[in-house]
Amino acid sequence: MNWSAIFAERVSAMRRSTVRELLKAARRPGVISLAGGLPAEELLPKEAVGVAVESVLARPGRSPLQYGETEGVLELREWIAAHSPAASGSVTPENVLIVSGSQQGLDLLGRVFLEEGDGVAVENPTYLAALGAWRPWSVRFQPLRLIPHAGGVLVEEAHSLRESDGSGGAMRPLKLGYCIPNFQNPTGASLAGEERRAWVEWAARRGVALVEDDPYGALRYDGEALPSLRELAGESVIQLGSFSKVLAPGLRVGWLIAPVPVIERLTLAKQSVDLHTSTFNQEVILELLQRNFLEGHLTRLRAQYRERRDALLAALERHLTGLATWARPAGGLFVFVRLRAGIDARALLPAALEAGVAFVPGADFHCDGTGAETLRLNFSQVAPAQLEEGVRRLGEALRQSPARAPRGVAGGPQVGDAPAASLVEASA
Amino acid sequence: MNWSAIFAERVSAMRRSTVRELLKAARRPGVISLAGGLPAEELLPKEAVGVAVESVLARPGRSPLQYGETEGVLELREWIAAHSPAASGSVTPENVLIVSGSQQGLDLLGRVFLEEGDGVAVENPTYLAALGAWRPWSVRFQPLRLIPHAGGVLVEEAHSLRESDGSGGAMRPLKLGYCIPNFQNPTGASLAGEERRAWVEWAARRGVALVEDDPYGALRYDGEALPSLRELAGESVIQLGSFSKVLAPGLRVGWLIAPVPVIERLTLAKQSVDLHTSTFNQEVILELLQRNFLEGHLTRLRAQYRERRDALLAALERHLTGLATWARPAGGLFVFVRLRAGIDARALLPAALEAGVAFVPGADFHCDGTGAETLRLNFSQVAPAQLEEGVRRLGEALRQSPARAPRGVAGGPQVGDAPAASLVEASA
Repeated sequence: MNWSAIFAERVSAMRRSTVRELLKAARRPGVISLAGGLPAEELLPKEAVGVAVESVLARPGRSPLQYGETEGVLELREWIAAHSPAASGSVTPENVLIVSGSQQGLDLLGRVFLEEGDGVAVENPTYLAALGAWRPWSVRFQPLRLIPHAGGVLVEEAHSLRESDGSGGAMRPLKLGYCIPNFQNPTGASLAGEERRAWVEWAARRGVALVEDDPYGALRYDGEALPSLRELAGESVIQLGSFSKVLAPGLRVGWLIAPVPVIERLTLAKQSVDLHTSTFNQEVILELLQRNFLEGHLTRLRAQYRERRDALLAALERHLTGLATWARPAGGLFVFVRLRAGIDARALLPAALEAGVAFVPGADFHCDGTGAETLRLNFSQVAPAQLEEGVRRLGEALRQSPARAPRGVAGGPQVGDAPAASLVEASA
Repeated sequence: MNWSAIFAERVSAMRRSTVRELLKAARRPGVISLAGGLPAEELLPKEAVGVAVESVLARPGRSPLQYGETEGVLELREWIAAHSPAASGSVTPENVLIVSGSQQGLDLLGRVFLEEGDGVAVENPTYLAALGAWRPWSVRFQPLRLIPHAGGVLVEEAHSLRESDGSGGAMRPLKLGYCIPNFQNPTGASLAGEERRAWVEWAARRGVALVEDDPYGALRYDGEALPSLRELAGESVIQLGSFSKVLAPGLRVGWLIAPVPVIERLTLAKQSVDLHTSTFNQEVILELLQRNFLEGHLTRLRAQYRERRDALLAALERHLTGLATWARPAGGLFVFVRLRAGIDARALLPAALEAGVAFVPGADFHCDGTGAETLRLNFSQVAPAQLEEGVRRLGEALRQSPARAPRGVAGGPQVGDAPAASLVEASA
């Protein structure tokens, strides 16, 4: 059987995720992995899940092992709706679709909206699995940047839109604008209030739907939460949420909040994609929520992750000053590092693994081939002493790298919760 | 926001599944639903799952709540490989991909193989959610039928293949042949040995890959199992399996067995679709398998379902003789009924629901607009007394239907495990 002869053309656009492949290499004994995006293993709520399962299996009138409705378990959709603030009107269960992790939400959005040549505006860098989910539709990614302006902040496309698809056909529209406003993956940066308003104004001006991905919003370690894009713009926003970072990724439960016509189409798509998300896992999560487990668990997560973030930042200052710059994230799981000019993070990786530390090169998060000198470090998964040792090894690899920067060049860490604008501008 | 203006064209090919919508209507109190395809609620292994969860959460060295590899939990892939007989060579874990229910397997196959205009050969009728999974790719479905022949049985396309796509372009190839050899959904029919060989020979002759969907194979109530298409044809077959019908559909765990180059592409597709299937549910199923729970559970399921099948067949004979014909399935969950000519099952449904019984009209299972006079009855979910009463109500609705057949026309039930050939021919 000559399989290659019958694969669809789009298969060639499917790429192995560097992150997920690295998760394998980084499991070698002795390697300190700063490459993941995983919650801390020791903080996963095993005991609470055990208790919840017992209760779910014993509750009369529920069928946690049976087929369920594509939309998801009604009571879970009700809980999510009730806990999602809206600026005008309210979020109802009809606005909520349960998905098998928010990655599936990204995939479903591609299925429902994207056709060959369609434009998707993205932060640059952005979450690489969003690029991966939409690339098979042969879309064009349009990097955006936020620029300071006399009256505040404006969103601009970094490149002018193509006026034609090159084949003489009509230009396909810019359909979606994708954004992670809180503690972005990979940059760790958050949009300031005026930057959120700039996104919303830009989307309204261009007639583009906003996709607001918010897996990390509840993991804030400093400062106060800002209104979501959905709260600011309402009907033109599709919001993605997830229980992966705040409860357990192994359960694979996330959700989408959107206007009803969008939820209807996404539900149709989901029906043929996997019928529905695990009833069992939805019921287990519902049980945890109804027992008010989440709030206390978040307090524990925030305390631990704050300590780890601070340990990573201290280690960076100790071992990478003069070799790289970075910003202090106010939440989430990541610190984004920019190496001195001329050092390619991908070229550095083998030496780093040799020295016993893993990271994710930043280039894959960029949609335009830039970002070679960037890398992403995760702090949620690693104890403070290991973070210190991992960064020490990274510094060692960097100093021994043939592509290392000249010594003595000025440039220390940037401190403060860097707004996305500066980071995105810097990488454009 | 004008959402309709930005939906992708393929959204118009997404249809609500009649079955799943009916599951909602059929939940009205007092309605006996023969419409589902669900395992019996009271036979779902709640207790065993509870014990397995406890053990999974207590086992050191496992991370059942953490992210996992896209391919699936290695030990589960090993179990599946070890329990999948092969005619030549052996099935290895590298041939196995864990999916979120075998519906996801169908979706992934579409992503990896199908492009606009590609041909997919199908039994007619066939599993409607396979049609639903592949329709968004704008494929053409090519109904096949098995015809008796001097030398045995041949597969033939019911219609000649189009030699052009109508736009003057080159004809797209016939890529996949989709088949449910055991206790088919919706017909309940199984392929006889020579029919299996006919499919394999046809596929080899045409250079088509076979997709063998086998969710019901373990639910055999009479006779002996026959070799699978994968055992007969090996390298040109992609086989789909599922734990939904034999353990619990609410866990959403199925698998694909295929040659390594195919598994590699499917894994890439799955990575961007949902990262991986719930680690927790994979571990729970693995635990059940390692405790040898499945074999005993299957014995219980077979005994109960056999009794229910027999109750349904007896009720049909009592109440529908002269009004319809049907065949005796040797396993699975369904009996397929052909009403007397001139009666449209969809038109009958409101009267049936009024009389307090639900079924699934058969037309949606046909890819060519035929099958109006057919319907599918499920027996796994309903106790024998209810099956009797449900069929009595169906007979009542049928007798009162304005479109009812003339009385006294000859034609009783067909008895015996009808080969697919006769059923497929009859519906062509």
